[in-house]
Amino acid sequence: MSLAPAHGDEGSAPVFDVQIPAGYRDWRLIAVAHEEGNLNDLRAVLGNDIAIKAFREGKLPFPDGAIIARLAWKYVPSEENNRVFGRQQSFVTGDATNVQFMVKDSAKYASTGGWGYAQFNDGKPVDAVALSGCYACHVPVKARDFVFTRYAP
Amino acid sequence: MSLAPAHGDEGSAPVFDVQIPAGYRDWRLIAVAHEEGNLNDLRAVLGNDIAIKAFREGKLPFPDGAIIARLAWKYVPSEENNRVFGRQQSFVTGDATNVQFMVKDSAKYASTGGWGYAQFNDGKPVDAVALSGCYACHVPVKARDFVFTRYAP
Repeated sequence: MSLAPAHGDEGSAPVFDVQIPAGYRDWRLIAVAHEEGNLNDLRAVLGNDIAIKAFREGKLPFPDGAIIARLAWKYVPSEENNRVFGRQQSFVTGDATNVQFMVKDSAKYASTGGWGYAQFNDGKPVDAVALSGCYACHVPVKARDFVFTRYAP
Repeated sequence: MSLAPAHGDEGSAPVFDVQIPAGYRDWRLIAVAHEEGNLNDLRAVLGNDIAIKAFREGKLPFPDGAIIARLAWKYVPSEENNRVFGRQQSFVTGDATNVQFMVKDSAKYASTGGWGYAQFNDGKPVDAVALSGCYACHVPVKARDFVFTRYAP
């Protein structure tokens, strides 16, 4: 989430080795959100079939193989829409910012709650140090298996 | 879009007869948006296979059979997320508000640009008068076959 790493010790950063999952842009929608501040984005959270099934069944923890994708785009006012509404009220997706993934593998990622984390900027993975804070920030939602997003019905 | 009908004459309201398409919640994502003002929502725009293909190929007009779904949820601050970020910045999806559809059938809906419009509140369709302004509001984007939403890459 672009927060500071939880550890200053570079050597302690877990190596997640998560690749971009094929076809993730076709996955089904979990929910959407808006982040202000430095992020200033509109985001969609998508899930592969295993993740979607678990969300819909309210099943925790997520089974191995579940993958959650967070896509984000710049938060841009739409003058075109605002003209129709007659006021400033519409914000739409601009350029993509980055894509993040959480991959459930309870054995491989046991030291980080069973989830591997990844972020890709223009298709390039960020390094392990940049990901070293992911797990710590997700700990507050440990009761939901470290997943912030709730399914939007 | 919850705007005033373009016509005061109830008899002139087109009857669209659009039903809720089966499985629309599983459709692929076109884009997301945020509307302030009275709507105050976060929204996701999904498309059936015909619509998604046309969006990705930049093909206009949309072929018959294309359906675009607009889901919307209340725009709700997330105190849970804000605690992690350390400031007020996160907005997530609350309760669903309503669902809208645009269905392309160039013959059946010839008088409204080839699109039929529908809105369902808690699964119940709104009446023809409530939909009579849809077409007029979409005319400004006639050059994009009356579709406001642009595909988010």
